[in-house]
Amino acid sequence: MTRSGNNAGTSRYDDDLENTWGCASWFEYIFTVIIASVLLIGATALTLFWVIYYRNGFAWRDDPKIQFNLHPVLMVAGFITLSGFSILLYRLCRCLKHIYAKMAHTLFHTLAIPCVAIGFLAVYDSHNLNSPPIPNFYSLHSWLGLVTMGLFALQFVIGFFTFLVCLCCAKMTYGCRGAMVPIHASLGLATFLLAIASCISGLTQKAIWTLGDQYSKFTEEGIIINALGCVFIALAILVSFAVRRSNAPATAKVYVTERL
Amino acid sequence: MTRSGNNAGTSRYDDDLENTWGCASWFEYIFTVIIASVLLIGATALTLFWVIYYRNGFAWRDDPKIQFNLHPVLMVAGFITLSGFSILLYRLCRCLKHIYAKMAHTLFHTLAIPCVAIGFLAVYDSHNLNSPPIPNFYSLHSWLGLVTMGLFALQFVIGFFTFLVCLCCAKMTYGCRGAMVPIHASLGLATFLLAIASCISGLTQKAIWTLGDQYSKFTEEGIIINALGCVFIALAILVSFAVRRSNAPATAKVYVTERL
Repeated sequence: MTRSGNNAGTSRYDDDLENTWGCASWFEYIFTVIIASVLLIGATALTLFWVIYYRNGFAWRDDPKIQFNLHPVLMVAGFITLSGFSILLYRLCRCLKHIYAKMAHTLFHTLAIPCVAIGFLAVYDSHNLNSPPIPNFYSLHSWLGLVTMGLFALQFVIGFFTFLVCLCCAKMTYGCRGAMVPIHASLGLATFLLAIASCISGLTQKAIWTLGDQYSKFTEEGIIINALGCVFIALAILVSFAVRRSNAPATAKVYVTERL
Repeated sequence: MTRSGNNAGTSRYDDDLENTWGCASWFEYIFTVIIASVLLIGATALTLFWVIYYRNGFAWRDDPKIQFNLHPVLMVAGFITLSGFSILLYRLCRCLKHIYAKMAHTLFHTLAIPCVAIGFLAVYDSHNLNSPPIPNFYSLHSWLGLVTMGLFALQFVIGFFTFLVCLCCAKMTYGCRGAMVPIHASLGLATFLLAIASCISGLTQKAIWTLGDQYSKFTEEGIIINALGCVFIALAILVSFAVRRSNAPATAKVYVTERL
């Protein structure tokens, strides 16, 4: 490894012979990108459809029950769709310079923050405005959601300082950034999968509360909720697989010490 | 990489200078192994405690409601404790020859099979024996459980043939086994995390069904159920992290092409 870490701004795809792909790799790559995009957009689209078609759409402060509907939509948009695109874009993008891929990764995660914040306020508010007020933070779903938000915030702050701010003195921070890469990557995937676990527990409790006995009768809404859960699971498998596959650009040998 | 793939039976830890660890690595390693073991055993122990102390223990065919109790205990024992130990043992064990680590990995997964099978029969039977019978396979939890069992079976069968049976002609199957390693590892972790998602959704629906409104009053049982969920989440993070950490034996450079 002769190159130093301060070439983060240069493209490292086209001029790298070791990284040349065959037809099968390209097919697998394009297939993964298309399916992942469809599922990531589909997750938010299906949640929107469910909420608008079966749960009476949106409101803010007028009706706590309808205000709640912002919660699933915004959380799925922030934690699944935007974060998922951010992860895949960083790991799979072959057409951007590395620093631009980093910026796009940060941008998508930044866009997720207001979604998560408003999504959190929507449910907190709707619990408190309900008469009688519904207690907060008692369910496993809420505990999981809190852990996910905490991990997301931690990853965002540490990632921002380590991989962007520390680029100001790229040579000095090379070792530190190198040590952080596997931790940030593992915890990032863990955060995404935790978000999916939170969504699954949230869908389960919403299905039981709102559908009750109807849930066991294979009603339309029950099947939509289960299908949404399956989309999340497909995403969990696809994203875990995509970011770890051996021929993803980011796992090619040349990046092991350089992708910092 | 001058060594060929047919040395699967030899130890590759002690004689490998590149793989020498410092104090910090050993501390991190021992810490991970101890915490993971405590959590893996703790998951089954806490489920047993919950079921015996709050849900009236076990029965088979006498009382469908009590027969159900075998389901969480056996599923957690099979999918979490045994599978978790199997994954960590294979990835982190530094004291066994590689072929013995493989055999132990297979043994632990084999022990998980009867747990999962009886755990599945327990809930299927308890639904059918109930009066009136409870429908099967309508909930998101059941769908997730089916996907998890399917992936587990697929991984077991393909892993067994690829990494054990194919050793009969180690040289011929070297390329194939090499190609399967990242797929088996990624899907294995995905299966474990899916099992955790299934447990989380199962705990959520059980908490809502059995505790009802009491769940929001921070009752003892509700907190035990949430704590169990937190143990699962801690395991999801720890296992994702442990199997991917850069200084785990299996990720050291020398194994990239040899650990097949």
